[in-house]
Amino acid sequence: MDEAIKCYGSSDMIQKLKNKDSLFLCVIASTLTSRIIGITGAGATPELTDYTPAADVELVMLGKPLCLSEIPKTVIAGDAAPTPAVITKASLDLADIPLLVVDAGAVIKPNIPFININKTPGGDINNGKGVMNSAEIFNKGFILGQTLSKLTDHLFIGESTPGGTTTALGVLTAMGYEVDHKISGSTPENPHMLKHKVVNNGLKLSGYTAGELKSEPFKAVDAVGDPMIPAVAGIAMGSNVPVILAGGTQMTAVCAVIKGVSPDFDFTSLSIATTVFVAEDETSDINFIANQISDISIFAIDPLFENSSTEGLVNYTKGSVKEGVGAGGAMMAAILKGVSIDEIRIRTEELCKDIF
Amino acid sequence: MDEAIKCYGSSDMIQKLKNKDSLFLCVIASTLTSRIIGITGAGATPELTDYTPAADVELVMLGKPLCLSEIPKTVIAGDAAPTPAVITKASLDLADIPLLVVDAGAVIKPNIPFININKTPGGDINNGKGVMNSAEIFNKGFILGQTLSKLTDHLFIGESTPGGTTTALGVLTAMGYEVDHKISGSTPENPHMLKHKVVNNGLKLSGYTAGELKSEPFKAVDAVGDPMIPAVAGIAMGSNVPVILAGGTQMTAVCAVIKGVSPDFDFTSLSIATTVFVAEDETSDINFIANQISDISIFAIDPLFENSSTEGLVNYTKGSVKEGVGAGGAMMAAILKGVSIDEIRIRTEELCKDIF
Repeated sequence: MDEAIKCYGSSDMIQKLKNKDSLFLCVIASTLTSRIIGITGAGATPELTDYTPAADVELVMLGKPLCLSEIPKTVIAGDAAPTPAVITKASLDLADIPLLVVDAGAVIKPNIPFININKTPGGDINNGKGVMNSAEIFNKGFILGQTLSKLTDHLFIGESTPGGTTTALGVLTAMGYEVDHKISGSTPENPHMLKHKVVNNGLKLSGYTAGELKSEPFKAVDAVGDPMIPAVAGIAMGSNVPVILAGGTQMTAVCAVIKGVSPDFDFTSLSIATTVFVAEDETSDINFIANQISDISIFAIDPLFENSSTEGLVNYTKGSVKEGVGAGGAMMAAILKGVSIDEIRIRTEELCKDIF
Repeated sequence: MDEAIKCYGSSDMIQKLKNKDSLFLCVIASTLTSRIIGITGAGATPELTDYTPAADVELVMLGKPLCLSEIPKTVIAGDAAPTPAVITKASLDLADIPLLVVDAGAVIKPNIPFININKTPGGDINNGKGVMNSAEIFNKGFILGQTLSKLTDHLFIGESTPGGTTTALGVLTAMGYEVDHKISGSTPENPHMLKHKVVNNGLKLSGYTAGELKSEPFKAVDAVGDPMIPAVAGIAMGSNVPVILAGGTQMTAVCAVIKGVSPDFDFTSLSIATTVFVAEDETSDINFIANQISDISIFAIDPLFENSSTEGLVNYTKGSVKEGVGAGGAMMAAILKGVSIDEIRIRTEELCKDIF
């Protein structure tokens, strides 16, 4: 188990959670920010990013997307890599971990049961209008976290939010964290300049300066964030059982909001789990961001895709896709239940053959 | 325990489920059928019945309805009785049983997290147009039942569907069960004639005769049912743990649909729990209906409201309200966790004082 999970920070949580029951949530949301040309690889065209969250969770739950005839594939510079939803599905299926989908504001609603906490998608943060009602979304998330934590020993919370690293950058910037060239991206050439330009435009138009909203997390999200961030922060804070945020640098924005809501929040029962593709990404630095917020343990899971016979999965090792739909956390959840990383990789390859 | 729970049929389930974990679902739905004058007491006016499901579940989850300034009170012939949601809340709170709300098509959506399986309310069965898509609702319910049953030992499923006894009558009639003067109602003068007239109109307009749809449950629901019925049937059939349907005669329509989908369905792990106000109602006969479908155990819980100092609760003993929001099943769930019926009654009285 230790080989597959790299740990930055305390690894206490691994021992505590081994063989415990867990519940995997996937929080989905859309924003008009994802329509900005060049901002995301999570969709073949900017318009198609509206379908990505629904297609992702339909794929994890049913093995095929219902809302799209084409499967979400990230296509960048000729390298095609399948959506990380296949990794999530392989992991949850092997470990028989239940999945619940939470809608924080997806444009296209999935054609499966989902928990509504917010209906309306986010805006374009280039205009300083990220979210209309982030405090309300947080409050509903909090109630949901209270309820769901009565049903399991341990919550994993993943997300599918196209353009989400840019809105995460927005929140972290507004709250005063040093994030220059530290935020991850879904493409090999992480467009840092474009992302910063969008965030700076948005902050200016909303009348705030970088760092001014350190203790005003909801104002930060309303101006330059996305609806997933307060939803996940609320669920995590409402939970009475340990929580692992299953995602990349976007989840540091969630931690920043949590710290903003409750400056003394104890992060010993809340960690981040991601893929090695994020943790070892040379164009970003998740640990550098997280350490500014608190003593947050970060786990990084390596599916050893360099050993894969499936070309699309090998492309993950070239930076084509790095994380999403909680893939890193789903692998960790499965490993904690005794599944091996080789089983996960092999099942992911089989799913790729079946689906694509 | 035995005194508070009366049992018609096998009581095996009680021993099996004592002190096990349970999850309580409340499935909400609206129909235009509830707008027919005189059909339901679940709302001060026909238009206000649109708010009843959302207000009910908001009350159970938060202690107050958010969507209505007035609390749902059933007002019939001068006797006011509070919504059975207070009984459900008292029971679930005392036993710390988690509640999840499932929307099968409520007009007004509750302002709390809820699981979406269908958005659109039902029509007016007087026109033979009950539900547009009952097979799809069933299928989503089935997926949800599979998932949720991984999180608990035991599912209770209640409902809030104004006008629901009339749509239940529709489904049972279309499927050939003998239900004349057997279906319950929310008012002391159960308007059997009106309900039968509506159902007969609907069947005629949809081109079916009574009994013709014995093995076509979805056609029966589409013509003269409501969206709650296929939702609950789907959840119950998808569940891999025992299920108790928490409701009155409406739940026999759910059982009829289950039997229609799967004629050999084994009802030993599926029972109905209701209040004594339904079980001992002289204007209806839940056991008579259930026995025609299968060997279905029915539990009836008596909160001894004749001992109450709260006038609205004493009115339950006069037939003002009989059941709803899974009140009978919620009491049973709490009793199985060791809560006494006196504690439930006293807590219900306290809630009435706090809320009304």
